[in-house]
Amino acid sequence: MDFSEYLPIWNKLTAEQQQRIAGIIAYHKVGKGAQIHDSSAECLGLILVRSGQLRTYILSEDGREITISRLFAYDVSLLSASCVMPDLQFHVMIEAEKDTEFWSIPACLFKNLVDESLAVSNYSQSLLSSHFSEVMWLMEQIMWKSFDKRLAAFLLEESRLEESSLLKITHEKIASHMGTAREVVTRMLRYFQSEGLVALTRGCIEIKNKNKLEALADA
Amino acid sequence: MDFSEYLPIWNKLTAEQQQRIAGIIAYHKVGKGAQIHDSSAECLGLILVRSGQLRTYILSEDGREITISRLFAYDVSLLSASCVMPDLQFHVMIEAEKDTEFWSIPACLFKNLVDESLAVSNYSQSLLSSHFSEVMWLMEQIMWKSFDKRLAAFLLEESRLEESSLLKITHEKIASHMGTAREVVTRMLRYFQSEGLVALTRGCIEIKNKNKLEALADA
Repeated sequence: MDFSEYLPIWNKLTAEQQQRIAGIIAYHKVGKGAQIHDSSAECLGLILVRSGQLRTYILSEDGREITISRLFAYDVSLLSASCVMPDLQFHVMIEAEKDTEFWSIPACLFKNLVDESLAVSNYSQSLLSSHFSEVMWLMEQIMWKSFDKRLAAFLLEESRLEESSLLKITHEKIASHMGTAREVVTRMLRYFQSEGLVALTRGCIEIKNKNKLEALADA
Repeated sequence: MDFSEYLPIWNKLTAEQQQRIAGIIAYHKVGKGAQIHDSSAECLGLILVRSGQLRTYILSEDGREITISRLFAYDVSLLSASCVMPDLQFHVMIEAEKDTEFWSIPACLFKNLVDESLAVSNYSQSLLSSHFSEVMWLMEQIMWKSFDKRLAAFLLEESRLEESSLLKITHEKIASHMGTAREVVTRMLRYFQSEGLVALTRGCIEIKNKNKLEALADA
């Protein structure tokens, strides 16, 4: 089980730098639902996902959430190393949405490599740019896309990830994902049901008309 | 008129790198209202503000805006060099909100320096982290702070920037800044007026009770 193919700049490191990473990188295997990173705790470092699915999100003081991104196999996240990035003044939470295997490179080691290696510094910048672009995209969605389109896109994405048209997800959970209130989600889902897009049963949402849902999401 | 004190990493550059910058850096003096960067045009590069006030914002297809940040003397912005940052996949607009003097370092030269100098790469990453943190803060404001608090904070900020309690700004313009509709702004301002926080006259908003406004913003 070799992590090096999960770290795109591995071949640009010196043998000594590779050894420092190899000597300290940690392998983790967590179950669905595990909280793997918490804004209050010491930060985990650079995360390399081997398999499964992680969700990165922020949390307000009163417990509301916004999902920032999803991480899959071969994704790398720098946001879980924010504690060592002096100008990155926000903190994310990360939880496993499926059983997940990943490696973590301690934040301090990663910071040292950024400070000494041009290749790592450029790579770190490129990761940060990708994370930043995702958040800008998300903000545009939130500000400018009406909620029906966002919800349609969300249901389709969930269906793709779960490889099923039957989604076992509560309205509360969807509201958390989308940074809104449960009532708003319930109201829109009932509207979708009345339009024949979905069927609602206790704790489940079944996608009944994928084409119409896609048309709505892309409208 | 020496730009070097406006570029924090100047002393970390080699003499040759300093010469390349000095040979190509451009000085600009623009009037209030000038559009200095446009998402469709070639990008301007790294901006160093000497004096005045710039506004960075994004624009939706149907013309709605969200203000991302304000730049003042000694601020440096990397977002106007996004065209050369391969993973930075969004584009901002920048306009002068006051008469402004600034320098620009062409995006391509800056990119070359990032690729060859660890100091520049780390600095660029730190700029990016700051911009990213600003946007995350903004998103939290938008998602989690109710609109009355955001508007109160906005009026106080405007008053501070203009050094006046009399703000010459239209409701339309405020709506643009805050990514909402004019009606929403007008409704809330009328409520503020009824509470004695502001007085509204044609094209003007006068802050009548700064303490109450501050209490609302911080609530």
